[in-house]
Amino acid sequence: MASGRTHQGTAVRLDLAYDGTAFSGWAKQPGRRTVQGEVERALGIFLRHPVIVRVAGRTDAGVHAAGQVASFVTGARVVPERLRLGLNALLPEDVAVSAVTCVPEGFDARAAVARTYRYRLWLAPERPALERHFVWHVHGRVDTEVLVASAAVFTGRRDWRALTPSAHLYRDCTREVLAATWRPAAVIEGCGEEWVFEVTARSFLHMMVRVMVGSMVEVALGRLTLDDIAAALTCGERRRMGRTAPARGLMLMRVAY
Amino acid sequence: MASGRTHQGTAVRLDLAYDGTAFSGWAKQPGRRTVQGEVERALGIFLRHPVIVRVAGRTDAGVHAAGQVASFVTGARVVPERLRLGLNALLPEDVAVSAVTCVPEGFDARAAVARTYRYRLWLAPERPALERHFVWHVHGRVDTEVLVASAAVFTGRRDWRALTPSAHLYRDCTREVLAATWRPAAVIEGCGEEWVFEVTARSFLHMMVRVMVGSMVEVALGRLTLDDIAAALTCGERRRMGRTAPARGLMLMRVAY
Repeated sequence: MASGRTHQGTAVRLDLAYDGTAFSGWAKQPGRRTVQGEVERALGIFLRHPVIVRVAGRTDAGVHAAGQVASFVTGARVVPERLRLGLNALLPEDVAVSAVTCVPEGFDARAAVARTYRYRLWLAPERPALERHFVWHVHGRVDTEVLVASAAVFTGRRDWRALTPSAHLYRDCTREVLAATWRPAAVIEGCGEEWVFEVTARSFLHMMVRVMVGSMVEVALGRLTLDDIAAALTCGERRRMGRTAPARGLMLMRVAY
Repeated sequence: MASGRTHQGTAVRLDLAYDGTAFSGWAKQPGRRTVQGEVERALGIFLRHPVIVRVAGRTDAGVHAAGQVASFVTGARVVPERLRLGLNALLPEDVAVSAVTCVPEGFDARAAVARTYRYRLWLAPERPALERHFVWHVHGRVDTEVLVASAAVFTGRRDWRALTPSAHLYRDCTREVLAATWRPAAVIEGCGEEWVFEVTARSFLHMMVRVMVGSMVEVALGRLTLDDIAAALTCGERRRMGRTAPARGLMLMRVAY
């Protein structure tokens, strides 16, 4: 973008973390509290001009981020550390800027080559009072061996339209999932375990990770089979996959360019 | 249970976890939202009689618990798993009962022989957006070698009146600290570290752990010396110790009987 049009200003990259619990997602919406809205408001105050921010992962309401990346262009002079401190002072406590970097003109946060999401599953009879905004508490007998095995279905390059309620919005639902794995993350006091799903793709369809997780959990609970999942993927029908896992278990971990 | 005085009823032990953020501490106070208030309300509904609960650690406002223990006596018949499910259904989402156990008559949660607390310290320029209710974010250059070394001052049996603002409430401020150690807990994305302090004693004075942590951090920041701390302990003057570390970093981890 704009190589040549030097008057456009400085391109800036923001690395962000946020607790999505009290946000209606990333994307600005009139009358709603959104991360984009808060970040653009803070930037507007600090830089004294309106700013439009682009982002690597447009997280939904309730979804968290540890390593979100956003970018914008400004005509103002940017001292990165001063901007970082200024933004952190202006932003609410559930959003933090971990790094501000001046990047080559043309950098666009949307142009990431890989995005990694993590999903936390809480398998215990006990309710997760301390972690309740960050895990999905699943009741019932989850077979974790089946859970681990089921992830293989969700790797590779193919049409994943069965994993999104919004297939009609895409010209092409082909995506390449580079890695998808479950691992045990912690023993829960009493009698339980936390399991974590990590998945990396160049890009994802809307709700794709949450439908993956919801479907794998239904297989691990014995309510669906891996053959059901494979057939649903082949015919591309969302209604034949499992339910959508709740937003709170999902976190955007990192983005690569 | 009930050997002899069978009419007193069944003694019951509750193991609890809670997020202290939205509570005015454990102890019931009129007009305030407290953990004791919520637990006794839920027990009263389930058992259909008023219940007074005793507790191992009377945590202050904002302090969390992963392994709190409470006890009470009831004349009602108690089926532990049913009571656990009933309480979890009646309690708000920031308190959970992980276990209900019928215990021998005379069991008193207060009579613990050891209590272990953990304090989480967030050492990074980045604000902790995701962990903000559970860590103390310390700015400035904390010397973690000094931090580790400072813990030794706080072990052993002695009069600890310098560590509490409430010394006048105790007949005797002698307590035995069985273990007190710092360890690195995690690397923080960007450039930082989380450090965790774990301390075990038979019992603690009011605010004792938070004054310990506040004082060690001031030593590690170079604002106090270990000699200052030793002298303050010897003369028993609270005002010569460091400030009180914030409640949010503190969690009651476990209780032994």
